[in-house]
Amino acid sequence: MSGDIRIDLSRLRRDIEDLGRIGCDVSGGVSRPSFSPADLEARAWFKDRLASAGLAVRQDGAGNIFGRLGGEGRPVMTGSHIDTVLNGGMFDGAAGVLSSLECLRRIGEEKARLAKPLEVVSFTDEEGNLCGDFLGSRAFTGQLNRAEVERGLTQLGLPLADILQGTEFSLESILETNASAAPAVEAFLELHVEQGPTLDDEGVPVGIVDRIAGKHYRLCSFLGKAGHAGTTPIELRQDAFLGLADFALRSTQHVATRHYGSFVTIGRVAVRPGAFSIVPGQADFTLEFRSASPGTMAALETELFALAEDIARTRGLAFVSKVVDATTPLAVAPRILDVLTEECGRLGFPFLKLTSGAGHDAQILAAAADSGMIFVPSPDGLSHSPKECLRWDDLEKGANLLLASLLRLAA
Amino acid sequence: MSGDIRIDLSRLRRDIEDLGRIGCDVSGGVSRPSFSPADLEARAWFKDRLASAGLAVRQDGAGNIFGRLGGEGRPVMTGSHIDTVLNGGMFDGAAGVLSSLECLRRIGEEKARLAKPLEVVSFTDEEGNLCGDFLGSRAFTGQLNRAEVERGLTQLGLPLADILQGTEFSLESILETNASAAPAVEAFLELHVEQGPTLDDEGVPVGIVDRIAGKHYRLCSFLGKAGHAGTTPIELRQDAFLGLADFALRSTQHVATRHYGSFVTIGRVAVRPGAFSIVPGQADFTLEFRSASPGTMAALETELFALAEDIARTRGLAFVSKVVDATTPLAVAPRILDVLTEECGRLGFPFLKLTSGAGHDAQILAAAADSGMIFVPSPDGLSHSPKECLRWDDLEKGANLLLASLLRLAA
Repeated sequence: MSGDIRIDLSRLRRDIEDLGRIGCDVSGGVSRPSFSPADLEARAWFKDRLASAGLAVRQDGAGNIFGRLGGEGRPVMTGSHIDTVLNGGMFDGAAGVLSSLECLRRIGEEKARLAKPLEVVSFTDEEGNLCGDFLGSRAFTGQLNRAEVERGLTQLGLPLADILQGTEFSLESILETNASAAPAVEAFLELHVEQGPTLDDEGVPVGIVDRIAGKHYRLCSFLGKAGHAGTTPIELRQDAFLGLADFALRSTQHVATRHYGSFVTIGRVAVRPGAFSIVPGQADFTLEFRSASPGTMAALETELFALAEDIARTRGLAFVSKVVDATTPLAVAPRILDVLTEECGRLGFPFLKLTSGAGHDAQILAAAADSGMIFVPSPDGLSHSPKECLRWDDLEKGANLLLASLLRLAA
Repeated sequence: MSGDIRIDLSRLRRDIEDLGRIGCDVSGGVSRPSFSPADLEARAWFKDRLASAGLAVRQDGAGNIFGRLGGEGRPVMTGSHIDTVLNGGMFDGAAGVLSSLECLRRIGEEKARLAKPLEVVSFTDEEGNLCGDFLGSRAFTGQLNRAEVERGLTQLGLPLADILQGTEFSLESILETNASAAPAVEAFLELHVEQGPTLDDEGVPVGIVDRIAGKHYRLCSFLGKAGHAGTTPIELRQDAFLGLADFALRSTQHVATRHYGSFVTIGRVAVRPGAFSIVPGQADFTLEFRSASPGTMAALETELFALAEDIARTRGLAFVSKVVDATTPLAVAPRILDVLTEECGRLGFPFLKLTSGAGHDAQILAAAADSGMIFVPSPDGLSHSPKECLRWDDLEKGANLLLASLLRLAA
């Protein structure tokens, strides 16, 4: 009876550890941005693992890699990404892709009867080291910002075209994939480490995501007037950094009290001209806010910019900003939530429904198919860090829930 | 009668404009850090101007350049510096050195009788592009931080020894000058642009400095815990940047209300790891505070660090800091103040007594001789900027006051 198929944890663990050694950096983390030499090595390794599992391997023009079990038709798809942030951990993305592979491998080995094909996928550049997050899943579902890809400026400093040089891919192949017919996908499931403390704090081994937060990325600046730090009286200064300090405190206070459960973060700051003895004339910063509710996202956009404008007016500064990226919040489709919660109950695993504050490929796939996610606890909530980890018995439960749910959806 | 000698403004102006063309950069400013090719060119030009004026030229191992009028004995010294910040203006330092030269040139031309010799000086690296401010005047008066010079890390990125390569100077020659016997100087006068708005706001052409503020430079960090911006709840964050924001606002408020007329500035900021989606785990910043009162300087040191510690404790952060440089406030010697105010009255120039918020070589020279300063208004208070300027008729008054005061002191 197919409901009794279980994953082979020791094989899955070996795969994760093998992949984790590719791009392992000097500080013990993993640095494997898409199309880096380490990523190209990981891609070759992964395609080899897919083929060894008897899956039909293909890739598209954006470098997304697929391995199929079963014949023609709309597949039930499962996967994540094998790229990492610089100096990240070995589980973010990889745990999901390799759990998906293990599920299909076990289902193939057991020759379980499927009404629909199953497909494991690894999407390119989920981490946004190139042109914004989710390059691969966006291209796959036709949601790329074409202008941004054509501009081709990457977070890593090199132009995208240079990074693609010597690979099988190009700006043109990425844009062609983006422009091609919308993919026929039956459903999409992604297993991922939680990247937050909730499951670990609650001592629950499995998370079922019911919402994925939207996020809004903006580059902002307060503009004032530089001045000599020993001759410009405090009351006459137009100190751009004090404008930012005021905004940082008040925006955080506003979100924490008025929109509990939403997030605002100032993660990068540059002050100009940037010297001991010069009052800052310009303060550049990144602003990011997230919420699981579309209404709250809209309110945050209005309220935070009104706050920034108000601070600028009061302090004799100007405020300017531009959007870098934005995703809308996603509510997971009821039929997917039903399958996940029913199978989890049947397996006897305690679980928690929770919101994903982090963005995921599943959110992008939602434009093309009902999508859902399974979370595995992150001890201490650590993420994007060499210290990121998971417990193998938690992963075993999450992967078995993925396997059971895939069988249900493909039945 | 020597009291009637006046400077030749058109000759002084031509000198200032000639020197301003050396190191003129693409954005219209002047970039002439000490021992840069532009500075070496300026040094050769200046020595030539000294010699043409009939002055006896010498330089010491720290690159300070002197031009003497009259024979042996303790000179009445006057001067400033010809180095500039990167992308600074053509008057900061240069106006003082070349006014001093013009004074000695006129006194020499008029064969005025002097009881003491007069000496014009240009001190090396007043701007602190190398190892902290005032390298030249500190070496001249034996006040260098020997360890810092030996470490030889410069603000410009290159080691000091590399910058000195190919010049007549070396780490050893600088340290020898510093170690040699204290110079015998009768008195020191420095003319300088105000670098602040006071004289310009008040419409007064001459400033007589009665105090020079002390300053305290510190490198500081708040240390917290990096976290994922979409999964770490706001109330659980240990956001180092919010600690800095809080400190910036509260320290400014504290100084503005409790120590009116003193200054606190956060001029440089770096947030780590520094990404859109990562809660800052570390916020590094420069902290500078200044006051004309020794008591206030001591109070600021105690109070600002108590505030930082308090913020760190409240927010679950750590606070660390180290002193980079510190100068004590200087009260100008009464006999110098008397000479300056009496001569200014005799010349019929309106003047204001004021505190210098900026540091100057005169403050360093005060360890060796009674020192005083004359300020020329800075239109709009602009300083360390290509737009820095002065009005020629203001400079004429300031330089004539310098000339009359030098004659009094050398009589």
